[in-house]
Amino acid sequence: MSTIPVGILGATGMVGQQFIALLADHPWFRVTWLGASQRSEGKPYREAAAWRLQAPPADGVADLTVDAATPGRAPKLVFSGLDSSVAGEIEAAFAQAGHIVVSNSRNYRMDATVPLMIPEINADHLQLLEAQAKAGWKGRIVTNPNCAAVVLAMALAPLRRFGLKTTIVTTLQAISGAGYPGVASWDILGNIIPFIGGGEEEKIETETQKILGCLNAGRIDFHPVTISAQTTRVGVQNGHTVSASVGFDHRPSVEAIVDAWRSFKGRPQELELPSAPADPIVYLSEPNRPQPTLDVDRGRGMTVSVGRLRRCPVLDYKFIALGHNTIRGAAGAAILNAELMHKEGLL
Amino acid sequence: MSTIPVGILGATGMVGQQFIALLADHPWFRVTWLGASQRSEGKPYREAAAWRLQAPPADGVADLTVDAATPGRAPKLVFSGLDSSVAGEIEAAFAQAGHIVVSNSRNYRMDATVPLMIPEINADHLQLLEAQAKAGWKGRIVTNPNCAAVVLAMALAPLRRFGLKTTIVTTLQAISGAGYPGVASWDILGNIIPFIGGGEEEKIETETQKILGCLNAGRIDFHPVTISAQTTRVGVQNGHTVSASVGFDHRPSVEAIVDAWRSFKGRPQELELPSAPADPIVYLSEPNRPQPTLDVDRGRGMTVSVGRLRRCPVLDYKFIALGHNTIRGAAGAAILNAELMHKEGLL
Amino acid sequence: MSTIPVGILGATGMVGQQFIALLADHPWFRVTWLGASQRSEGKPYREAAAWRLQAPPADGVADLTVDAATPGRAPKLVFSGLDSSVAGEIEAAFAQAGHIVVSNSRNYRMDATVPLMIPEINADHLQLLEAQAKAGWKGRIVTNPNCAAVVLAMALAPLRRFGLKTTIVTTLQAISGAGYPGVASWDILGNIIPFIGGGEEEKIETETQKILGCLNAGRIDFHPVTISAQTTRVGVQNGHTVSASVGFDHRPSVEAIVDAWRSFKGRPQELELPSAPADPIVYLSEPNRPQPTLDVDRGRGMTVSVGRLRRCPVLDYKFIALGHNTIRGAAGAAILNAELMHKEGLL
Amino acid sequence: MSTIPVGILGATGMVGQQFIALLADHPWFRVTWLGASQRSEGKPYREAAAWRLQAPPADGVADLTVDAATPGRAPKLVFSGLDSSVAGEIEAAFAQAGHIVVSNSRNYRMDATVPLMIPEINADHLQLLEAQAKAGWKGRIVTNPNCAAVVLAMALAPLRRFGLKTTIVTTLQAISGAGYPGVASWDILGNIIPFIGGGEEEKIETETQKILGCLNAGRIDFHPVTISAQTTRVGVQNGHTVSASVGFDHRPSVEAIVDAWRSFKGRPQELELPSAPADPIVYLSEPNRPQPTLDVDRGRGMTVSVGRLRRCPVLDYKFIALGHNTIRGAAGAAILNAELMHKEGLL
Repeated sequence: MSTIPVGILGATGMVGQQFIALLADHPWFRVTWLGASQRSEGKPYREAAAWRLQAPPADGVADLTVDAATPGRAPKLVFSGLDSSVAGEIEAAFAQAGHIVVSNSRNYRMDATVPLMIPEINADHLQLLEAQAKAGWKGRIVTNPNCAAVVLAMALAPLRRFGLKTTIVTTLQAISGAGYPGVASWDILGNIIPFIGGGEEEKIETETQKILGCLNAGRIDFHPVTISAQTTRVGVQNGHTVSASVGFDHRPSVEAIVDAWRSFKGRPQELELPSAPADPIVYLSEPNRPQPTLDVDRGRGMTVSVGRLRRCPVLDYKFIALGHNTIRGAAGAAILNAELMHKEGLL
Repeated sequence: MSTIPVGILGATGMVGQQFIALLADHPWFRVTWLGASQRSEGKPYREAAAWRLQAPPADGVADLTVDAATPGRAPKLVFSGLDSSVAGEIEAAFAQAGHIVVSNSRNYRMDATVPLMIPEINADHLQLLEAQAKAGWKGRIVTNPNCAAVVLAMALAPLRRFGLKTTIVTTLQAISGAGYPGVASWDILGNIIPFIGGGEEEKIETETQKILGCLNAGRIDFHPVTISAQTTRVGVQNGHTVSASVGFDHRPSVEAIVDAWRSFKGRPQELELPSAPADPIVYLSEPNRPQPTLDVDRGRGMTVSVGRLRRCPVLDYKFIALGHNTIRGAAGAAILNAELMHKEGLL
Repeated sequence: MSTIPVGILGATGMVGQQFIALLADHPWFRVTWLGASQRSEGKPYREAAAWRLQAPPADGVADLTVDAATPGRAPKLVFSGLDSSVAGEIEAAFAQAGHIVVSNSRNYRMDATVPLMIPEINADHLQLLEAQAKAGWKGRIVTNPNCAAVVLAMALAPLRRFGLKTTIVTTLQAISGAGYPGVASWDILGNIIPFIGGGEEEKIETETQKILGCLNAGRIDFHPVTISAQTTRVGVQNGHTVSASVGFDHRPSVEAIVDAWRSFKGRPQELELPSAPADPIVYLSEPNRPQPTLDVDRGRGMTVSVGRLRRCPVLDYKFIALGHNTIRGAAGAAILNAELMHKEGLL
Repeated sequence: MSTIPVGILGATGMVGQQFIALLADHPWFRVTWLGASQRSEGKPYREAAAWRLQAPPADGVADLTVDAATPGRAPKLVFSGLDSSVAGEIEAAFAQAGHIVVSNSRNYRMDATVPLMIPEINADHLQLLEAQAKAGWKGRIVTNPNCAAVVLAMALAPLRRFGLKTTIVTTLQAISGAGYPGVASWDILGNIIPFIGGGEEEKIETETQKILGCLNAGRIDFHPVTISAQTTRVGVQNGHTVSASVGFDHRPSVEAIVDAWRSFKGRPQELELPSAPADPIVYLSEPNRPQPTLDVDRGRGMTVSVGRLRRCPVLDYKFIALGHNTIRGAAGAAILNAELMHKEGLL
């Protein structure tokens, strides 16, 4: 069934491992090629990767020999979980060699000709690929957002219709967002770190504006919402929680907002993409939800959970949102992008 | 040396235990009386209390026989760590019987004639006690704020001079704030609970306005800052973290704010009260501070740590504040109140 | 498909919830009746139960009205997750009324006429039911072991052939073993509690001997292994880890032991019972396994993982074993018992 | 007062930081020299060290310029917290240059001419230093044990009089034992790792025999107790817990053992060394103690807590012991060694 061969760049890293885990039973995509750094080149994957996920990789993948992270033997479609320190060059090399690079790395997210996709929100941004064609690229690069920006953008997208103007968020982010080994247990056990490096807050503030933006004459007009983010790291394995206050041009009713969230669907649901959750957003009415351990796996990790909507005395409303940072916020997001491209005939 | 006898209401509960621990070597106050519920009455304290703190209670206290929570044998000065379900009636009974009740409970905090004290901020609010005298009370009731409101109010107090107008906060609160047994490990291990019961958010929003308010003709004019709070529970033992954005009438400079925090002192520092920290507020310039495990014990738990001050694109500034919820936010706060009253001749 | 109606005693408790979760898609059993304490009687289950598991209960069960924990309307087969403080009387009442009670409670485990089952190990112990018939019981009671005893007994069963003589274990037990609310976060966050109440160590020491025992003329001859247990509680959600040293009459080789574990199968595998894992035991050769977060869900929580087998200088060998305490150690164990009884024609 | 200058090798590492923290107010020793790797050389300590402890280093130390880890400018007495990968060569170089190296590293612990000290147990082992003199060393090397071996050896030392023969232990070790960054949060959050690298189990088994051994004609006769250890890593910040079973030639009474622990004193108590706890061992009679968060700081981290003594059906007795791994098990141990040497006229 799964007849489309795919490669994985950065295959031994944590995002690479998550690509492999999520693609294990994929109906369309089959992992046939793994690229990683020189240290792993030539080794069977099962030896090259220090596997940290629960279910071990399928034998078919574990037995693959890891290749260099260079174009050549890779199939046309390549997922990238490369570290941003090397993703810029390597992804460009693959795109120039004619590959379709569906990347989780941050390097090209804000590039004017690169779509920054959440398919439920901005499937039409794929039209930016024409600009890549015009620029003479043989291949293509498509990206998904930062793992916290995804959660916020999903919660905000249905609110655009009410004249969304301002957003202040504090995030409580899981340690899996920092990869492996990532955060030292010395730093996080029974603790909070009120800081995440690598420009996390700026990514949330700017990527969200691009994601929510409108395609206009082959360019993205950023959404004018002003966003302010403070990010913290907490001792949670999976699941980024976002505490948000939002202001509107004209304040809608509670019911209108809840209805906007509950009825929110997009192109992935229309096309019934394999990774698309039936409900991209669920609104939970219990007073103490969403919670990472109870809600993060909804929709196989692709649903964003929202709760506690109520009036904010400073802006207009406040609420809590939660999403799975390594699925909806990373590997699952990229796979959904590739599924969309396949159905839209772009692979 | 410690010649002033004090009693403790709710002595077997967690706040009661913290009173006993903090008063162990107090230069003025000596615990001579313990009041608790019927279940404990008549038992030696060491048997009545399920002690949960690190250092065991001193023998002198552990050997005391627990009395009923009724006036009579109690000394004039009584600290109250009673649960709010019973504090209303019992504290009133003690006040009517002529006791000075220095309470950590929430029941009378918002009463117009009861001071809601953070002595560094509003030592003059003690003048409300005259209203209690006029109302014919024989004794007095003085309260300290909610454990999260303390942290916020301390951070905001030095900012009043800049025309503080709006504040949006998300709190990350320690499990010790819920007492014992409090939060089930099932609920919080590797998790976030985006909700704290008992009206926590309302307390933060309204108590802070009273704390920051001005005494005016025997009444408190609440400070006009509008506050919006979302509270979460995290797997931290001690230390409430507050992520805040603030708006002003006229935006001050970063330097002016940091200077206001660093130079902030109050009556407790002037009077050199035993529990007063040299610095009520420290501003930490490292990018990833304050953190509970590293900073919560500053000033023996009485200092509030602030960090990460920077521009907020929606309001004016954002920052992180941290305070020890069971010391500055509970038992230590009440003891500081009593120390102030002693020095001001009000005991 | 699932044509056998089953009831659940103690349906609102944590074990009751786990029965409901595990039976959600069961091919044979369908939950049609829920019994609980007076507090819940007459309420729809969705209101009566404070549901603490990840996936919410199916509508068909959530809509059931909770009945009293008395025989009458219950179907013949009843799973019991009752607290041991009430299980004795209630389970007896159900058995006397003709029900088949498949219980997770400890009350009848050590009763001479009650099978204490791990079907892979002692499926023949079901013959004890004849003694219940002779005693004039209309119904039957069958039990599964303590959640830590299961893990140990599984690891020891294949070693009986080598003349197993002595076992010293230290357990590191998950907080879910204590139910809800169970262990206070105040007690376990960043901590170890070297004690588990309710006679946990004695249960491990004696139940294991009965489980490993031989049926002999309608009675169980306990296995003569001498067991010494120290139990600790650790901050793990699911998964009891057992650190064991074992002594034999004649010391086998490492290979013989690993082979005994890897080839271990029992009646559930023969009969292909729905809850039977393909491998009741897996032996992991990595030096740092098994680990709760990586291995507890093997075989859908029904496989016990073993690792680190090596010589013990005092006894003969030492190793680590891990099992899922709420699945293999509780609800899943009882369901496997009922599946066995069904296939053996005992329902 | 503190007139003896001391140097610290490996000053920027975690053990080095703990030396600095513990020596901050030492009555005899004053830190005047810091040695570290090339990366730190020439920098002020406050810049060179990524300080991870609660209280910041005193200005006097923070302002010191870090030197190379070579003899020359260092004072005579040098504490070593060097990583074992480099400690062998560097400590030898310092000893040859005439320094007294009081080391926490493992490299020379099992050397026949190097004392492996717990001063309460084997203060006389310092006589091994004569062998170093005979071997022509200008300086000396003295070591303290592995952080888990200390806890076990302390608990066993008073039991030697009863003919201690066998010991089986499982340890539950804190993450601080692995240094910084040490254990990844990904690996330990809500998890147990049943393995500690670097030969931890062998160290516990063999170092304990040397510590408990007798000086005999200038050599240490190892104690004949046979020890079997399984080590696990748990999500605890500080405090190694040891679950032990012990066998004797002649089984003593419970009272005799408890009395042996409670009355245990040694040379540090006789000499009233500054770091010596009044009670090297406390026996706690509560059924659920010792616990890391409640008991680890007893005796300022230098007391080992023991509890739950009861009969073991396989060997003779079982019990739980707990000690602070970075104080009694590392920096505090080395400082106590140096204090003893000073009082014995060996500096």
